Amino acid sequence: MSAEVEELLKRFQSFKNVIGIIVVDNDGIPIKTTLEYNLTLHYAAVMQSVREKARQVVLDLDATNEFTFLRLRTLQHEVMLCPQEDYFIVVLQSPCD
Amino acid sequence: MSAEVEELLKRFQSFKNVIGIIVVDNDGIPIKTTLEYNLTLHYAAVMQSVREKARQVVLDLDATNEFTFLRLRTLQHEVMLCPQEDYFIVVLQSPCD
Repeated sequence: MSAEVEELLKRFQSFKNVIGIIVVDNDGIPIKTTLEYNLTLHYAAVMQSVREKARQVVLDLDATNEFTFLRLRTLQHEVMLCPQEDYFIVVLQSPCD
Repeated sequence: MSAEVEELLKRFQSFKNVIGIIVVDNDGIPIKTTLEYNLTLHYAAVMQSVREKARQVVLDLDATNEFTFLRLRTLQHEVMLCPQEDYFIVVLQSPCD
């Protein structure tokens, strides 16, 4: 998994305005992060619940479908959630220009 | 509200690959739709729960922040959720080229 995670991290780090990246395993435990500890734990827990919600909702609407990506925009920044089989990646971005 | 809703509908309908638009009030009742009845009811209910989840999560991470937009990508299509004060808009898009 590690090489794949590193590859994805590199890809996301090349995005414009990225202010933080967290990789979270399926137990909700952050396995990589560029943010400080408490913020990482907070985002990991909260975004795991978002991932589960998105997964359920997509299956509820169509059992043959699958959730592949989520972007949440807020007044202050954007959060991307990219689910993989064994983990998911959370990317924080400052607002686009 | 009606003129504002019409304006937003026009804006979203001009987006590429739009396959359906639903406007849902804060009670979860669809007040405008371009989809058939049962699908509209299903999306309205499910996306209201997504809206509530997004709202809670953003406030949980930072009580001064606010959820402004959500994009959910699936294998089959994309769903955008645009919250307004008295209602929210759900836009279904086929995958981008």
